[in-house]
Amino acid sequence: MRNSKWYEQPNELGDIVVSTRVRLARNVADYPFVSRMSLEQKQELIQKVKQTLESANFSSDNPIHYIDMAALTQAQAVSLAERHVISPDFTTQREGKGLFLSEDESISIMVNEEDHLRIQVLCAGLQLHEALDMANRFDDLFDSWLTYAFDEKLGYLTSCPTNLGTGLRASVMLHLPALEQSHNMGRLINTLSKLGLTIRGTYGEGSDAKGALYQISNQVTLGLDEKTACENLKGIVMQVIDQERQLRAGYVNEAMEDQIYRALGILKYARLLSYDELMNLLSLVRLGVSNAIVPNIQIGTLNSLIINQGAASISSMADHEVKSEERDRIRAQAVRKAFA
Amino acid sequence: MRNSKWYEQPNELGDIVVSTRVRLARNVADYPFVSRMSLEQKQELIQKVKQTLESANFSSDNPIHYIDMAALTQAQAVSLAERHVISPDFTTQREGKGLFLSEDESISIMVNEEDHLRIQVLCAGLQLHEALDMANRFDDLFDSWLTYAFDEKLGYLTSCPTNLGTGLRASVMLHLPALEQSHNMGRLINTLSKLGLTIRGTYGEGSDAKGALYQISNQVTLGLDEKTACENLKGIVMQVIDQERQLRAGYVNEAMEDQIYRALGILKYARLLSYDELMNLLSLVRLGVSNAIVPNIQIGTLNSLIINQGAASISSMADHEVKSEERDRIRAQAVRKAFA
Repeated sequence: MRNSKWYEQPNELGDIVVSTRVRLARNVADYPFVSRMSLEQKQELIQKVKQTLESANFSSDNPIHYIDMAALTQAQAVSLAERHVISPDFTTQREGKGLFLSEDESISIMVNEEDHLRIQVLCAGLQLHEALDMANRFDDLFDSWLTYAFDEKLGYLTSCPTNLGTGLRASVMLHLPALEQSHNMGRLINTLSKLGLTIRGTYGEGSDAKGALYQISNQVTLGLDEKTACENLKGIVMQVIDQERQLRAGYVNEAMEDQIYRALGILKYARLLSYDELMNLLSLVRLGVSNAIVPNIQIGTLNSLIINQGAASISSMADHEVKSEERDRIRAQAVRKAFA
Repeated sequence: MRNSKWYEQPNELGDIVVSTRVRLARNVADYPFVSRMSLEQKQELIQKVKQTLESANFSSDNPIHYIDMAALTQAQAVSLAERHVISPDFTTQREGKGLFLSEDESISIMVNEEDHLRIQVLCAGLQLHEALDMANRFDDLFDSWLTYAFDEKLGYLTSCPTNLGTGLRASVMLHLPALEQSHNMGRLINTLSKLGLTIRGTYGEGSDAKGALYQISNQVTLGLDEKTACENLKGIVMQVIDQERQLRAGYVNEAMEDQIYRALGILKYARLLSYDELMNLLSLVRLGVSNAIVPNIQIGTLNSLIINQGAASISSMADHEVKSEERDRIRAQAVRKAFA
């Protein structure tokens, strides 16, 4: 049996919190920042990371594989970004970029992204401390084999000053249909920014939220340690969850229940599905599962469709170029199978 | 087990032809036309019809029951019109109006509608001669017990001159989504009117066609006998069916298949359904069944929902006054059960 992916894991708050992501930005003292590195230096660094990981002999039930980004097709590369395994930036100019990815796709180490190392851990549901602990394990490992660029006052030195200090970005992806529908997002964005956090649509900055999925992240990397940053974020996220649950009491009425079941009916029967429509339908069904309206549907099924049914992911799975209509057909087929 | 209704019977052309209806308008020489009858005369006529039917001792497996229209609630009366068992006119000023209805609802005899007798036979699919034969059996029966108002030159005398002659109105209800979508209905209406036929939406004159259901009827009752009128109508209906089938070849593509399956998904899962939406969804599913896209659905199931899910029919089934939203809930429930 294949290793199940991080997003298929059940989790207590999984109905509202889709995922938690923690990433650490690190640079190695022996090399200039990535923008000034030669291709040879980049390859050398990738080799050093590879040796470090091999030496560590991490969990054999979730092995880490190396992916040479330059060897991928564009669809394969973008598919990784769609699945949140890498940043969108990591899909362009891929020569000299290396990715170390665990089999469950929860751990990814990008080498030669904006910084030398980007250590990322993804978990289902709200697991900030667990994700941070796991990222720290890799951080400690690299720290013992490589010399990090570190300043006693500033902390970890990073290519972009916004990451200076802890180099930590912790993000939580939330499903907030009631907050969205009640036009409370503007107020929430303001409140969060005063607290040093940002909230935005799931796929990229400034993008519209698809399927009522929002990502809340820390902005401040100076003046507080990683654990405190995660603690703060968790506290705020719990309050947002609370607001969402309260608003749902008035939002989920009989007409909404009808919409939820219609969405399920369309997911089970449609022959063509665009990704945007899929996200909207999944949002309704997730609300139904969360509010105990729709029985017998696993949150992991919904997560898996969100993660794996993007355009590039479908193209990279097929063995030929996939055009828009064929993609919608393949997607609808996969969705029917998932709900069968 | 209850007697299955006429519309549940399978029929060869049932995918496109929903139903055939034949009705004969007859008046009795001993009485003035209905508009000039006293209540006593009306009651007397109802008694005579009752005695005639009792004397005939028709099929015991499909008994005919008497319904005093004045004893019904408004919802019960309108429900009969929704199910095409009576005319809409028969639901108003119901004192002195009597209905004889067979258990399968295929045979109905309205007493004191516009004419003294309206003998109506309903069949599933295209069965003009069968329906006419059945109507003629009742016509012959009444003819032998009552004296019809009949003129050697004009034929049967009727209250409205448009029915003079044979007193026959033969109608066929057709499902014509491809003709409708290809904007061919205007041309068809013109052609049919030149041939002495009319086509119109299913529920009443001038009404929009719901669910792409159209009714083609003869208009001419003078100068040709009943059998010839039915023969003509059948010939034209066969041509219309042929046009519809040809147009579907271009009309039913992958996008339409998607629409058909989505309609099925909504019917199976919706919690609220208006009658208009139900008709549109059933139209798509009928197209899917007809074109062998959707398997395992009986045409009788679709017919039954068309016939029985009108507002008044739902109200008359419930034991209390049913408001709009509750009606949509009850309807959605019945539809889910039908497709389960």
